[in-house]
Amino acid sequence: MVAELITVGTEILMGNIVNTNAAYLSEMCARLGLTLYYETTVGDNEKRMYDTIRTALDRSDIVILSGGLGPTQDDITKDTAAKVMGIPLVEDSHTRKRIQHYFETLKGKDVKITENNWRQALVPQGAIVLDNENGTAPGLIMEKDDRTVILLPGPPSELKPMFEGQVFPYLEKKQPQVLSSRMVKLCGIGESMAETMIEDMISAQKNPTIAPYAKIGEVHLRVTASAVDDEAAGRLIKPVVKELKKRFGKHIYTTDEKVTLEESLIKLMKKKKLTLTCAESCTGGAISARLVNVPGASDVLKQGLVTYSNKAKRRYLGVKKATLKAVGAVSRETAWEMAKGGCFQTGTDACIAVTGIAGPGGGTDEKPVGLVYIGCCVGGHVKVKEYHFSGNRAKIREQSVVAALTLLRSCILKHKC
Amino acid sequence: MVAELITVGTEILMGNIVNTNAAYLSEMCARLGLTLYYETTVGDNEKRMYDTIRTALDRSDIVILSGGLGPTQDDITKDTAAKVMGIPLVEDSHTRKRIQHYFETLKGKDVKITENNWRQALVPQGAIVLDNENGTAPGLIMEKDDRTVILLPGPPSELKPMFEGQVFPYLEKKQPQVLSSRMVKLCGIGESMAETMIEDMISAQKNPTIAPYAKIGEVHLRVTASAVDDEAAGRLIKPVVKELKKRFGKHIYTTDEKVTLEESLIKLMKKKKLTLTCAESCTGGAISARLVNVPGASDVLKQGLVTYSNKAKRRYLGVKKATLKAVGAVSRETAWEMAKGGCFQTGTDACIAVTGIAGPGGGTDEKPVGLVYIGCCVGGHVKVKEYHFSGNRAKIREQSVVAALTLLRSCILKHKC
Repeated sequence: MVAELITVGTEILMGNIVNTNAAYLSEMCARLGLTLYYETTVGDNEKRMYDTIRTALDRSDIVILSGGLGPTQDDITKDTAAKVMGIPLVEDSHTRKRIQHYFETLKGKDVKITENNWRQALVPQGAIVLDNENGTAPGLIMEKDDRTVILLPGPPSELKPMFEGQVFPYLEKKQPQVLSSRMVKLCGIGESMAETMIEDMISAQKNPTIAPYAKIGEVHLRVTASAVDDEAAGRLIKPVVKELKKRFGKHIYTTDEKVTLEESLIKLMKKKKLTLTCAESCTGGAISARLVNVPGASDVLKQGLVTYSNKAKRRYLGVKKATLKAVGAVSRETAWEMAKGGCFQTGTDACIAVTGIAGPGGGTDEKPVGLVYIGCCVGGHVKVKEYHFSGNRAKIREQSVVAALTLLRSCILKHKC
Repeated sequence: MVAELITVGTEILMGNIVNTNAAYLSEMCARLGLTLYYETTVGDNEKRMYDTIRTALDRSDIVILSGGLGPTQDDITKDTAAKVMGIPLVEDSHTRKRIQHYFETLKGKDVKITENNWRQALVPQGAIVLDNENGTAPGLIMEKDDRTVILLPGPPSELKPMFEGQVFPYLEKKQPQVLSSRMVKLCGIGESMAETMIEDMISAQKNPTIAPYAKIGEVHLRVTASAVDDEAAGRLIKPVVKELKKRFGKHIYTTDEKVTLEESLIKLMKKKKLTLTCAESCTGGAISARLVNVPGASDVLKQGLVTYSNKAKRRYLGVKKATLKAVGAVSRETAWEMAKGGCFQTGTDACIAVTGIAGPGGGTDEKPVGLVYIGCCVGGHVKVKEYHFSGNRAKIREQSVVAALTLLRSCILKHKC
């Protein structure tokens, strides 16, 4: 089946935001075995949106739109899509109640329900209403004459859970062949290196296929097989995953789609009964924030110390004044003392410590922007690694976070307990 | 003038990469005052690419394509675009020499010129050839019958310098009008409420226009004017921004496009010479990580204490054991003691403290998931606010971060010093 994406938003056309929804939805369609020939972005203009949806319906079975479902006058996606399909809008009492409830739970904030909000309770007659757990605009599925139009809210935090929870299972049922896939997630290895290591597998592939996706500091390999049922697809996938495990070894942190690097790390530390302190300078709390993404992280992470100032590094981590004076805050020695001190001052089994120059200022010839030291102490043993990252401040910090999690994982795997 | 973007690449349709070229080119077009109504992504298929270019030329003055200019059989953008324009390809001796030279400088790197590479020396007759300083594929500009087609290489490292150095000046000369805009950023107010407050302005708008963008916990209003030059556009924008300032008052934290909430906050605190401690539980370091986004945040943020465990709350913030026992970690009282203790134990002027239930587990009838207390201490005076957020764990935490920054900003604005 052929699907087509239309992302709606003047802010995309103005270049205010990067269209990550299109990338996300494309990946999901690929997973579902839907063929995608076109992606279009259009603004909040009725005539142009109408034409775009009309054209898409002429050449594709399924049209997925995202954005423009909000309560404001600008938001015309629902009205326009319903008009193209020739379906009238009617009030959905279930959605009206849900919106009412949504605003009631917001009572701590200074937010009032305005007349605009009730426009979101209007839905195309007979449409499948997709509840939005993270906002007010419901998603909608319209079906008519062998064509399906799916409307999704624009904010990724609303779109993604709605797609995974409700749209994915719906589309899966439409597909004659089952497409099943397994994600092999790697850390501590670059994209080109990973691809080179499986070049032969990729060029010989038919079914299953292997598709590499580069993430910051990680590489994900999706192994996808098409078969009559899940079991048959699973039998095709198994030997490929086995071969990948053989080639990448400990670089693989999970083969479970939903598991993140931080989740696998928390699970590993729980299993080994290890507690953790994060000691962060240039990452500014981003490592502990990432670990706290994992529900139940509190069994492992006892505290995070964002020792941004030298004074804080001394006070909370016991970094020596002499060390800071002799070699500076961004140094192998300081990272070492931060990691060691993070364990000893707090009594946790492990500490991951980061100090570096994220830029744009603060760099010198000797210590350029992008220079980052990561120290890791597990069971009293400290390891420090030096990194040279490139990119802007945000990119350098993101890379530092993933490198820290990767180093911590590798130290824990080596640690005997 | 109306421009249109076509990005070419199967890897975009598969979701393997995020289409950052489209975002970059959109922003450049906005800066040039070119109106963009459509962006399309299409794969390397001749029929579909032909149709896409044909459609674009029927409705836009300038069509910009990126990708598919490489040396392989897959790369058909140049041939297809020339075909649509009805222009034959001829060899360009200058480009042939450039390719030869490019490969000569690579020698030692084990790269050979293949017959395919010479295909890149073929250009549409009469086209403007744009030298590629960072690769072999030249960019091309074709002009015919009041229509312009611009072909750019796909890799951002080749596309960006080529656009800025050669395409931007070329397009700038074509524009009679310039488009200039100003961004008014609000916090502490919802999107619908904000829009209701300026409904009359939006419905009466012509030039300038006002476009609202909802962000998590923020609303951004873009005011855009079209005029003969930047100065004239500025004169049109000024009274509109003045009126918005009158209506939204202190909800406006900046009118500078590039300034973020955290940046305006750091600037405000620097001006008032206030130092800060972040004391975070459920946000897990995300508030301090966000503040550290700002270069030079170290003048304000002295430390972040991620007191995830009760023990850490007592040790680092001096929260009383009796309080934790009587009313629990997620309570108005604990938030109060965290904020106060955060200042007094560290000696900073201000402390922002967050404690809440981010879920998915841990909620009760009395204290449901989404209940968050934020305490803010500035100059010894403590304020605590109760919030009820909805959404998943990530969304609750993101909303908590913005609410904390907003509360801190409001307390500082009220603080006399």
